[in-house]
Amino acid sequence: MIDLPYLSDVTRKTPSKIILLVVDGLGGLPHPDSGKSELETANTPNLDALAGESACGLTTPVAPGITPGSGPGHMALFGYDPVKYLMGRGVLEALGIDVELKEGDVAARGNLCTIDAEGLLVDRRAGRIPTRESAPLVEQLDRITVPGVELSVYPVQDYRFVLVMRGDGLSERISETDPQVVGAAPLDAEAPSGESAKAADAVNAFIAAARDVLGGRDKANMVLLRGFSMLPRLPDFGERYRLSPGAIAAYPMYRGLAKLVGMSVIPTGATFDEELDTLEEHYDDHDFFFLHYKPADAAGEDGDFEAKVAALEALDSRMPRLRALNAEALIVAGDHSTPSILGGHGWHPVPLMVNAESTKGDGVACFSERACAQGSLGRISATDVMMLALAHSGKLAKYGP
Amino acid sequence: MIDLPYLSDVTRKTPSKIILLVVDGLGGLPHPDSGKSELETANTPNLDALAGESACGLTTPVAPGITPGSGPGHMALFGYDPVKYLMGRGVLEALGIDVELKEGDVAARGNLCTIDAEGLLVDRRAGRIPTRESAPLVEQLDRITVPGVELSVYPVQDYRFVLVMRGDGLSERISETDPQVVGAAPLDAEAPSGESAKAADAVNAFIAAARDVLGGRDKANMVLLRGFSMLPRLPDFGERYRLSPGAIAAYPMYRGLAKLVGMSVIPTGATFDEELDTLEEHYDDHDFFFLHYKPADAAGEDGDFEAKVAALEALDSRMPRLRALNAEALIVAGDHSTPSILGGHGWHPVPLMVNAESTKGDGVACFSERACAQGSLGRISATDVMMLALAHSGKLAKYGP
Repeated sequence: MIDLPYLSDVTRKTPSKIILLVVDGLGGLPHPDSGKSELETANTPNLDALAGESACGLTTPVAPGITPGSGPGHMALFGYDPVKYLMGRGVLEALGIDVELKEGDVAARGNLCTIDAEGLLVDRRAGRIPTRESAPLVEQLDRITVPGVELSVYPVQDYRFVLVMRGDGLSERISETDPQVVGAAPLDAEAPSGESAKAADAVNAFIAAARDVLGGRDKANMVLLRGFSMLPRLPDFGERYRLSPGAIAAYPMYRGLAKLVGMSVIPTGATFDEELDTLEEHYDDHDFFFLHYKPADAAGEDGDFEAKVAALEALDSRMPRLRALNAEALIVAGDHSTPSILGGHGWHPVPLMVNAESTKGDGVACFSERACAQGSLGRISATDVMMLALAHSGKLAKYGP
Repeated sequence: MIDLPYLSDVTRKTPSKIILLVVDGLGGLPHPDSGKSELETANTPNLDALAGESACGLTTPVAPGITPGSGPGHMALFGYDPVKYLMGRGVLEALGIDVELKEGDVAARGNLCTIDAEGLLVDRRAGRIPTRESAPLVEQLDRITVPGVELSVYPVQDYRFVLVMRGDGLSERISETDPQVVGAAPLDAEAPSGESAKAADAVNAFIAAARDVLGGRDKANMVLLRGFSMLPRLPDFGERYRLSPGAIAAYPMYRGLAKLVGMSVIPTGATFDEELDTLEEHYDDHDFFFLHYKPADAAGEDGDFEAKVAALEALDSRMPRLRALNAEALIVAGDHSTPSILGGHGWHPVPLMVNAESTKGDGVACFSERACAQGSLGRISATDVMMLALAHSGKLAKYGP
């Protein structure tokens, strides 16, 4: 993993190429009727053939039993301890809508909410008002000014928004204003120490102004803020691994995560086919590519088993295009499982395959949770995937005499 | 691993015996034609029968993706964190030729090299001159004296030698003189701080003298030094595990490693058969034996699949002799893999079997990478092997009430 003290001694620059395909929400669980998981149900001849020529295993994203969000799931695959380098919800929400954060900015996740005449919470999500209703409110919030701190408010979706504070001497160490229960009043932001006072004051001034701006409305007449957070200080991915990394992702959050670790984000379209176009066009520009495939996760989150099967089959049909590039190391991994029967992320280990010149005949006949459990890689931490990628592409020298 | 804080509370002295057979470079990879690894190809009825009566698994020497040298590979099997207790190249080279290092000595790996009239490197290895040509030059180098530091220069092989400096106040923290590229001039040793100044001055004085001694020759007219290192401070193996350890190894480097952790090195011959003679003769003298088998690694390093198969078969034929001793715990492990198709050390997990009275029927039918992956030990860190050895030989008491 990236904190290995001797990493700089063993990494070496070579012309070989690595493609890390992250299939979001890859792992699943058996359907109660068939006893087969999404991967086992899907007709995936290309993924299966690749598994037969790869070293296979299962990755644990964070720790057994821990269900990771997208942030920790990806950080782990990039080789960063997802506990040490945890990023806050505000930062992740901002990344998710392509907001450019700078060092020192504090981002928060905001909700429009509804309070009653006594100022007590009636609905923490303001009846989940649709974006077309919330957008003009967020615009009004964005016009709020506070002395000494530059405020920006960005719409996300429905009742959700992002607040970004910019200015000298801000701190993320302030308390959340969301009491998490209805019937209680929204809280003031509190500073545990003097160094957080400026940020807390700015937040409270913003909230007071927001109450004025939204007041008089029946619903969506107040705001809640949580997940105050700043950009974590992350070691540079390219520097640590001695790679020139390019990221190709249709969804903003994954581009944001890649940018955060210092990858070059290559502009691409909204579909996986367009991502592949981009990969082919820019194949000579980098020696490492992070390629993100979203649909499997989205279907799993919806609890739609058949849609997830279809998403995996769609991916399978694109594998020949990916393999035609002949990368020295082609890795198919997942940031976490998203079992359709859970309708959300899971804590379950995630199938992994590493394909390279030297990985022939792991004895795994198909790419699935159960088959990968029998592979030669065994069950490893997701933070080890990058080391395997480097090793299999010939980018690691021997450690120690 | 050896740093377990409660180790001294649970270890107990018993008459039972442990044999740790380290098959150097044990693990391999499938041959592209047959799809079978060296172990799977070799006819090894005795190893297979032993696997059927053992607890089997795979060891990771350092970390996934990391290819270890012999030093880290053995240290891990002895239970020492191979990152914390890394030893330098100079020390390991000295151990490899049976040089007795003392605490405070600084050892360096030396090359005879060739420079041109301008003093620029033409050949970092002096045309790989043979030992018969280099030996008299090394003898001349050994006669060089420097005030305040005792210098010794030992021939290794061909263009390689070892420099050992002895004296008060030396430090290993000095920079290498090998610029690693031809066309550059050999570098001076530099001290990053005052405490290294004495050592750096001595090295530079040695280099200046060497230049005089060798000057006027067409080739092998200069020296390069790297891997300045001192003996690491290692916890005593016998003390920590409450064992009386004996080491039997035909090759000097492995004897040196054993000595470094405080094992008694038992003199032996140059072949494995002689190692077995030694083991039988001294079986009553110790309760732990480290027994080293080299030929598998040598064949793998040469990229000679058939020779590695033959080396494993030769080992197999000696297993009945080893088993006849009826050690309470017989462990067959490897310090790292040396897949013939890589022609060098690999990062791959290494087969392991632990045989004891209580290990019957792991369901593993043969001793191979794939079969051991299905064994009851799973995939473990090599630093855990000694704990398993102690447990299986009844030398560990219950931990905690």
